[in-house]
Amino acid sequence: MTAEILAVGTELLMGQIANTDAQYISRRLAELGINVYFHTVVGDNAARLEETLTRALNRSEIVITTGGLGPTKDDLTKETISKTMNRKLILHEDILDKIRNFFEQKHRKMVDINVKQAYLPENSIVIPNLNGTAPGCIIEEGEKTIIMLPGPPQEMQPMFEDTVFEYLKEKTGVILVSKMLKIIGIGESELETRLMDLIVNQENPTIAPYASQGEVTVRVTARCTQKKKQKRC
Amino acid sequence: MTAEILAVGTELLMGQIANTDAQYISRRLAELGINVYFHTVVGDNAARLEETLTRALNRSEIVITTGGLGPTKDDLTKETISKTMNRKLILHEDILDKIRNFFEQKHRKMVDINVKQAYLPENSIVIPNLNGTAPGCIIEEGEKTIIMLPGPPQEMQPMFEDTVFEYLKEKTGVILVSKMLKIIGIGESELETRLMDLIVNQENPTIAPYASQGEVTVRVTARCTQKKKQKRC
Repeated sequence: MTAEILAVGTELLMGQIANTDAQYISRRLAELGINVYFHTVVGDNAARLEETLTRALNRSEIVITTGGLGPTKDDLTKETISKTMNRKLILHEDILDKIRNFFEQKHRKMVDINVKQAYLPENSIVIPNLNGTAPGCIIEEGEKTIIMLPGPPQEMQPMFEDTVFEYLKEKTGVILVSKMLKIIGIGESELETRLMDLIVNQENPTIAPYASQGEVTVRVTARCTQKKKQKRC
Repeated sequence: MTAEILAVGTELLMGQIANTDAQYISRRLAELGINVYFHTVVGDNAARLEETLTRALNRSEIVITTGGLGPTKDDLTKETISKTMNRKLILHEDILDKIRNFFEQKHRKMVDINVKQAYLPENSIVIPNLNGTAPGCIIEEGEKTIIMLPGPPQEMQPMFEDTVFEYLKEKTGVILVSKMLKIIGIGESELETRLMDLIVNQENPTIAPYASQGEVTVRVTARCTQKKKQKRC
């Protein structure tokens, strides 16, 4: 199965932030055995976004977009996906209620333009956003799938873990078994250097180092497909 | 003037590293008033690299590649650029000497495959690499320019600063005047958040926060073109 990641945002092209969303998603897709052949970044420009999205859909089975889901006119991802996939944007009243609640809880005033965020392409699977106002969605069209996610990592990552990863796991028919190994005595970068040949060349199990709160761990993940479960696991 | 950045490396598509090279280069190009419309990442695959490079050259005046300049067979950037631009690869004896010295100084054994790194496309401007074995180069072809750089940031960044930035400054006819402001009391991320509207929307002067060794600074850079110097500066 092939996928590519399309990030939308002029702030990436201005060099204000690095495309860490693509890194995060790629790492997780690798664990599912999904081949990522391209990352692309485009700015908030309708024509270039449409051209890039169309090309991505032609050459990959799964296209994951990040960013461009804000409430302003600059944010064009949803509208461009709807146009490309020929799907109307439909108002979701339940999402609108959640957006209203989100603003109330933050004691912030909701402005009219935020209503735009409660619209999603028709016949799509909603990806709830518990940490922001822009929901994502999954659109299936024949053998192609578009997965639309917001750009801020603190919103994107939980949405990816709670909905997208499970969806893709189901789709690929992959069963994953992970073990976390705690490492002491060396830092993440040295660990990564020492393990680099395994990280890059090892397809199954995959090996991924992580560092958080002073702790370095390695996740070793073995995968097998459901059909071949008896033979391979 | 338009540019795009093409990063080459399967390790990026596997999510092992983020494409911080593209961020670094984009930030510096923005200071020169060069518009970056695309970032692309492709793996170590000749066909996909050639396709992506050809598209980039068709739609942008400047294409900057990072990565894929190592000594192994996986590293295809130079060969693909040579093929696409129809230029032979020429052995540079002086570069070969530098590579030999590099290994001697590090007390490491130079292997035969490293000789590959002393070849560059004919009629290109050499970009010396003082921190590694892979030199870069600049190739001019009519109104198009390809700039080829290695992937490791500790090699790429000095090469960009010492050769590429000056080359592009000359090419754009831009004169830059910078002031560094030292900031105390807040960290880089808070500073960036507070200045975000200026960072994203301000074209001239540009504003870029930096953090290093416990110090937070803001670089304010005004630019004017040489032709309009009297009027605009």
